[in-house]
Amino acid sequence: MVRGLGDYIDIVGEKIISEIYKKARSLYNKHLCHINSTFLGGGVAEILSRLVPLMNEVTDADWRIIHGNPAFFEVTKRFHNALQSGSIDLTEMRKSLYTDVNQEFAGYTHLKYDCVVVHDPQPLPLITFYKKRQPWIWRCHIDLSNPNPELWNFLKKFIIRYDLMVVSSEKYIKKDLPVEQRVIHPAIDPLSLKNRELTEAEISRFIKQAKIPQDKPLITQISRMDPWKDPEGVLEVYKMVKEKVDCRLLYCYNLATDDPEGMEIYERMHKKARNLVERGDVLFVVGNHDLLVNAIQRFSDVIIQKSVKEGFALTVTEALWKGKPVVAGNVGGIPYQIKDGRNGFLVDPHDYKTCAERVVRLLQEPKLAKDMGKRAKEYVRENFLTTRLLKNYLDLFSEVLR
Amino acid sequence: MVRGLGDYIDIVGEKIISEIYKKARSLYNKHLCHINSTFLGGGVAEILSRLVPLMNEVTDADWRIIHGNPAFFEVTKRFHNALQSGSIDLTEMRKSLYTDVNQEFAGYTHLKYDCVVVHDPQPLPLITFYKKRQPWIWRCHIDLSNPNPELWNFLKKFIIRYDLMVVSSEKYIKKDLPVEQRVIHPAIDPLSLKNRELTEAEISRFIKQAKIPQDKPLITQISRMDPWKDPEGVLEVYKMVKEKVDCRLLYCYNLATDDPEGMEIYERMHKKARNLVERGDVLFVVGNHDLLVNAIQRFSDVIIQKSVKEGFALTVTEALWKGKPVVAGNVGGIPYQIKDGRNGFLVDPHDYKTCAERVVRLLQEPKLAKDMGKRAKEYVRENFLTTRLLKNYLDLFSEVLR
Repeated sequence: MVRGLGDYIDIVGEKIISEIYKKARSLYNKHLCHINSTFLGGGVAEILSRLVPLMNEVTDADWRIIHGNPAFFEVTKRFHNALQSGSIDLTEMRKSLYTDVNQEFAGYTHLKYDCVVVHDPQPLPLITFYKKRQPWIWRCHIDLSNPNPELWNFLKKFIIRYDLMVVSSEKYIKKDLPVEQRVIHPAIDPLSLKNRELTEAEISRFIKQAKIPQDKPLITQISRMDPWKDPEGVLEVYKMVKEKVDCRLLYCYNLATDDPEGMEIYERMHKKARNLVERGDVLFVVGNHDLLVNAIQRFSDVIIQKSVKEGFALTVTEALWKGKPVVAGNVGGIPYQIKDGRNGFLVDPHDYKTCAERVVRLLQEPKLAKDMGKRAKEYVRENFLTTRLLKNYLDLFSEVLR
Repeated sequence: MVRGLGDYIDIVGEKIISEIYKKARSLYNKHLCHINSTFLGGGVAEILSRLVPLMNEVTDADWRIIHGNPAFFEVTKRFHNALQSGSIDLTEMRKSLYTDVNQEFAGYTHLKYDCVVVHDPQPLPLITFYKKRQPWIWRCHIDLSNPNPELWNFLKKFIIRYDLMVVSSEKYIKKDLPVEQRVIHPAIDPLSLKNRELTEAEISRFIKQAKIPQDKPLITQISRMDPWKDPEGVLEVYKMVKEKVDCRLLYCYNLATDDPEGMEIYERMHKKARNLVERGDVLFVVGNHDLLVNAIQRFSDVIIQKSVKEGFALTVTEALWKGKPVVAGNVGGIPYQIKDGRNGFLVDPHDYKTCAERVVRLLQEPKLAKDMGKRAKEYVRENFLTTRLLKNYLDLFSEVLR
């Protein structure tokens, strides 16, 4: 049932796993603790649910979750948005609620660990409620390139107490912050439901269940109905492609019930593509479970990620890992993953024509598509799998515990 | 902001608080840990959110919450119901899900404590996934008088590993279980929103906001729309009372959207009492926040709790604490709280006539009502407040750590 480090040998090779064990030697008898704010839902919980069990194979690692009430999480959600450049009304009441919940949690959470890793802003103020007895690391998973200045100033007074801050991209490094900073790129778990190998029979079953016809080449974008993902642009690109090669567009989306903007985009796309939708050439599929998304990625001929703005873009990582040729916007973390012309194509997301040309080329040249896909998979294997993340953390711990 | 032991001196007296400090002496440098399954919602979370901070004033106590997925909580909810005499389809899959989630949690939860207290069935199997290094206590808050035998047999193999089991009533002691058992009655927090003192002005404001007229005596039952609380019987009793004394009935309820049975009862009551409801003599008020419930209890002349079946009945404790005369069914934990004729009236819940007579008597004899209410409050002060619960726990810990 429980997956262990040994299960990754077939994927990343013995050398990497052996390196992990060697790195852990300096951590014998060390006890670490990760603190975040959710167990289910969201990328951080997804990462920790895999990382922490693996970490426990080579050292002792606890995972604790700050308990908050709905008002607290409403405030921290506002913080999250404002850190990604939104505005915020930073009232005294919100500030107190934020620190009070942290203080209460600290009251019954005795951190007798050799190192504490705090994830994201929710538990950030915890550090002020302890006598400091060990190195603390703040691991921020959020895009920090343009944080709201007022909020940033408020949070800085907590951040500067930390020994180290870890961000997800070189672009988020804060030159004026007197705290050492490190970059750790995110990673995907090759053994998760979303990424594990599927047999042809499994793929075919999911594709049939989702009523996706199998008689034409398929180009796919997987994303929310969000302007930053430019779903309407994807439709335009598809129309250009279709003039050259007969194929289908699959838009695999998720739509929250409290997302009127997404609903509007969805309806606009339906209107614009009415004939194509009726003919079954443009398909909308709700990507409501991991195995289905996995199958769709594996079944598609080309994956598009025509984003105008992105964080790291783990959906791109997932597609590359499945050996697919990806045509993606040259934004956010995407250029870390795609080397243009080698393991995929990078395009200016506003240049629909070039984007369409790249897709057409991949559809017309199966050898190119296959080679790119192979290189894509190898690039992810070397750079963006959980095992690399585990190595990064072991290095971090060795550094701060030295 | 944060309430401490000192704040209870005015309520329970210096002697009790001093006793608590004395009891804690044998626990210096001891580190305890409570484990349950929720932070918000439910009686256990309510108790721990008060108890654990107080415990941290006299020793070190952690509070950890088992992380589970929705499927796990669905299974444990079934367990909860079946422990209270329901039936259950105890499949192998359910058993594995139950133990697997515990095993996973144990993998990243290093229990370096001097004593572990596990609350209710959700984290019960945890003990099997550790090398036992300290006393473990299982604190069961559920009515165990008639558990489903198949489930009980399954759970027993975990229970017998514990050093001590604590139940909420003498009636739940299992004579055939080779584990030492103790009884700890539940308690209420006199400083919570639901129980704290309210000024006349505050009470009046909440009563007005809830549109409760103030011109006639008020008799109140606070409970879910649940056959065990016999809401329709309450209406019958009220009709009998009303023949003798002009008064109002207030039914303060909570209705979950997924509770069709409650909805039916509610509609039947409305139909049966149509004239009375239209005249404003029978009122239905949703008790959707603690301060409102507090105000309603304080504003009422007589509180009824005509239950046919009960656990401990903390709503009775709450009413008694507010110095109210209570007429309640002689079931569950109610006779521990009410000494018939002294600090309230106990009635056979099927004997509407006697119940109505008691209510009439209390409405007609204000001196009796007042004296009973006074004695009720004192009885709760001595027996059913959080500070007593804290003392019980300190005694338990001293016992197992001796």
